Amino acid sequence: MKGAHTLVKTFAQLGVDVCFANPGTTEMPLVEAMDAIGGIRPVLCVFEGVCTGAADGYGRMTGRPAMVLLHLGPGLANGIANLHNARRARTPMLVVVGEHATWHRKYDPPLAMDIEALAGTFSGWQRTTARTADILKDATEAVYKAGQGQISTLILPYDLQLEEVPEYRTDAGTPECASVDAGMIERAAAGLKKAERPVLVLGSRTLRREGLLTAARIRAAAGCDLLAEAFPARMERGAGLPDVPRIHYLSEMAIDQLSRYDLLVFAGAQRPVSFFGYPNVPAELVGKDSQTIMLTEEGRDAGEALEALAEELKAPPAAPEDCLARPARMDLPTGPLSGEKICAILAALQPEGCIVVEEAITNSLMYHPLTAGSRPFTLLTLTGGSLGQGPPCAAGAAIACPGRQVINFQADGAALYTLQALWTQARERLNVITLICSNRSYDILKLELGRLGVFQPGPAASRLTDLSGVDWVRAGESMGVPSVSVRTAEDLAREFSRALDEQGPRLIEMVL
Amino acid sequence: MKGAHTLVKTFAQLGVDVCFANPGTTEMPLVEAMDAIGGIRPVLCVFEGVCTGAADGYGRMTGRPAMVLLHLGPGLANGIANLHNARRARTPMLVVVGEHATWHRKYDPPLAMDIEALAGTFSGWQRTTARTADILKDATEAVYKAGQGQISTLILPYDLQLEEVPEYRTDAGTPECASVDAGMIERAAAGLKKAERPVLVLGSRTLRREGLLTAARIRAAAGCDLLAEAFPARMERGAGLPDVPRIHYLSEMAIDQLSRYDLLVFAGAQRPVSFFGYPNVPAELVGKDSQTIMLTEEGRDAGEALEALAEELKAPPAAPEDCLARPARMDLPTGPLSGEKICAILAALQPEGCIVVEEAITNSLMYHPLTAGSRPFTLLTLTGGSLGQGPPCAAGAAIACPGRQVINFQADGAALYTLQALWTQARERLNVITLICSNRSYDILKLELGRLGVFQPGPAASRLTDLSGVDWVRAGESMGVPSVSVRTAEDLAREFSRALDEQGPRLIEMVL
Repeated sequence: MKGAHTLVKTFAQLGVDVCFANPGTTEMPLVEAMDAIGGIRPVLCVFEGVCTGAADGYGRMTGRPAMVLLHLGPGLANGIANLHNARRARTPMLVVVGEHATWHRKYDPPLAMDIEALAGTFSGWQRTTARTADILKDATEAVYKAGQGQISTLILPYDLQLEEVPEYRTDAGTPECASVDAGMIERAAAGLKKAERPVLVLGSRTLRREGLLTAARIRAAAGCDLLAEAFPARMERGAGLPDVPRIHYLSEMAIDQLSRYDLLVFAGAQRPVSFFGYPNVPAELVGKDSQTIMLTEEGRDAGEALEALAEELKAPPAAPEDCLARPARMDLPTGPLSGEKICAILAALQPEGCIVVEEAITNSLMYHPLTAGSRPFTLLTLTGGSLGQGPPCAAGAAIACPGRQVINFQADGAALYTLQALWTQARERLNVITLICSNRSYDILKLELGRLGVFQPGPAASRLTDLSGVDWVRAGESMGVPSVSVRTAEDLAREFSRALDEQGPRLIEMVL
Repeated sequence: MKGAHTLVKTFAQLGVDVCFANPGTTEMPLVEAMDAIGGIRPVLCVFEGVCTGAADGYGRMTGRPAMVLLHLGPGLANGIANLHNARRARTPMLVVVGEHATWHRKYDPPLAMDIEALAGTFSGWQRTTARTADILKDATEAVYKAGQGQISTLILPYDLQLEEVPEYRTDAGTPECASVDAGMIERAAAGLKKAERPVLVLGSRTLRREGLLTAARIRAAAGCDLLAEAFPARMERGAGLPDVPRIHYLSEMAIDQLSRYDLLVFAGAQRPVSFFGYPNVPAELVGKDSQTIMLTEEGRDAGEALEALAEELKAPPAAPEDCLARPARMDLPTGPLSGEKICAILAALQPEGCIVVEEAITNSLMYHPLTAGSRPFTLLTLTGGSLGQGPPCAAGAAIACPGRQVINFQADGAALYTLQALWTQARERLNVITLICSNRSYDILKLELGRLGVFQPGPAASRLTDLSGVDWVRAGESMGVPSVSVRTAEDLAREFSRALDEQGPRLIEMVL
């Protein structure tokens, strides 16, 4: 069996069933192998940042790694921005990069780059396969390591893909189990009882349904508040779940928000730090007067620890009704659109079980508070701050969950980094509704200029934050996505409802 | 003076006059400084690969580095593919990346990445400025090092941009001079006289007008053939210049082409190697029976050495008429379009002094041979094989040379990586005509599948090479570029002529 066939067969046998690809010459044996072996669905993306963002969305929704196939150093480089987001989201992912033939590298051909250096910036595990006989072992280890919630990068030289491998077997290994530190649980329970204003800060997998309901039980027992990390990889939300506010993005607001508490117990969330380092703003958002307890080591699944904490606190077996959000009656706004009105329309109309990929930046400030009583849904956010995550992530989530409606609530500036994702949405007929907030501006940067005392930007600053001139209806249609433009709340509600009734991708430009 | 002001002032005083930018929070002080100091024209690009590709085009045409302003690691990563092309083109460029505040890095905030590792993959010179007092020195060194034909990357932490610098002065240094190795010139001259079938292989700056005319004189004196490197960063071509064929891209054809010669003298060109390493195809395209002489060390300007060689050979003071291409009479083809017909129409109609950025891949095979007798023009090609170079490079060339018509002869698949360049072309009203070869396919990959014996691609291979579904007229219009679609040679000739008469960008989709 050829090396390329071995790789595809190993991945397929270990449960990898989708490959988001933008291959080139040095990956062609792997493309051929997908036909020869079967079991892996190839999804073409016409820009690599779409491949990696889609695999992020897929991994967040399935918990399993998708394969990503990229071409040499430049192809990998184009995918890094969304690999960075995926690393921050702890998404399992398998990145495979073709490399020049082992004997060809030394000639420094035109496309040669230091692929390993690039991979080192986002990979939890990486390897350049040295011999064809190692492909089976390396591929198995890559899947196993990715399953721990990180990115595995396998760099596979062209000649090894073509060579014959003598025998074939798989050995998947078993994932590590998260351990619970009993002493830490006792300490946290004692702390929660003793503290005057305690809060439980949830992150990672504790923001799934089970974790949230456990947290509600803890709240009932300990009288603590609940908070979520600022940018969850995946969070369940809506009626029937506890209403868990997120830590604010703006440092000053977060510091104020967290200063209310004398004890913060972190369950799967990291200690929050300022997104950027500003003069005269503390980097650590938790003040020195507050006590903090980490339930688990960083990067560990805190689900079991949370359950143990509930038991230690003798929490009720089910979350009391008054700890859970009730379905809210929401009125639809009218008149010219604003960010807040868009949030309200979404909160009122988004269907049960939908997946919302939110990269709306300045226009989504009210979205989280307004959706506490919405129909239950899954929220995916921008974990690593690297713009252009929304459209690809939505495509990947739709491929992961074909029965669910995906809604991409999206800033225009951020969408421009990866608008090629619309092409994949059209090609694969994905049920993604893209809602573009067209304010024709990098508004977040105007806010940052304000921090520097610039409230009347000069010509350079104005020119570098002004995005006017993009016609989003034509952009969507150019990629095969039916698109409309709206300017009022009434029109948005109507067009959004209409899009929900239809199959396949839709784009709605919301002119602000 | 603030650190950010020092940087902008230093660059401006050293002749940097354009900044291709996609800034974020950590670059805002530099944006403010562009307003406060002046002298540098800010050009917004809505994706970083456009910034770097545009700076490549600008640097190739002016010989001076443009500044590129990118946001942290993810922004830099998005720019790497075209930085790779620029590195291969030996383009001078100044990349400036904002970094988190020096005291903020240790908290590993969401956007933190290993920026230095990324920069190491393409930079000839790089530095993370350590103290505000070093900005002047670092900025000066960056400009000086970039002037040697490489990329300088300066990583500037946010807090250092805001801090005050005590005094201000500039000290630019002077660029190194290329030295001529007299012994090597004598050896080359003797070799050329003695060889039966010698060829002079031109690369880098010897493909400018002066170098080409010197090469024609050498040809007259020594009876050698002339060849150009496969992918010149910049090459002058057309009537009045010697007709210099390029080394073929396909290894087998290149091996055959070069096997005719018993001596190859390289002037500014590298020893050619196979673009990819294929089984049973030699990596070194020059056979072992041929002698090779390198006129200069790799990376050195070979212009002076070429002139010295002409003197050593007692070449005539001017290139004889019969060594120069005459203006060719070219008939316009008719009927349905093909790659060859497009090349013929361009060769016949492209105006004197135009700049042609060629990234047409499989459809440009006949372009070089057909343009020997065209009106004199400048050709910029894809130096590093990293796709998506054409549209940004065309934008940068147009900014560098506002009086010249820029023509981007462009493959559709490659254009999709950086179609956001069209937005900058529209915003800046650049005289760029984009000619999209719409064959709706990664045709080059089908050719590569053939090498693997796959002539009837399976469903996976078909799906991963099929690009159907892009409407290029809508794509162009969505970015503000007036666009039309043509299917016949007559329509292309008419629409191309019409576009040449107009100001500002135009896009012509050529359906194949």
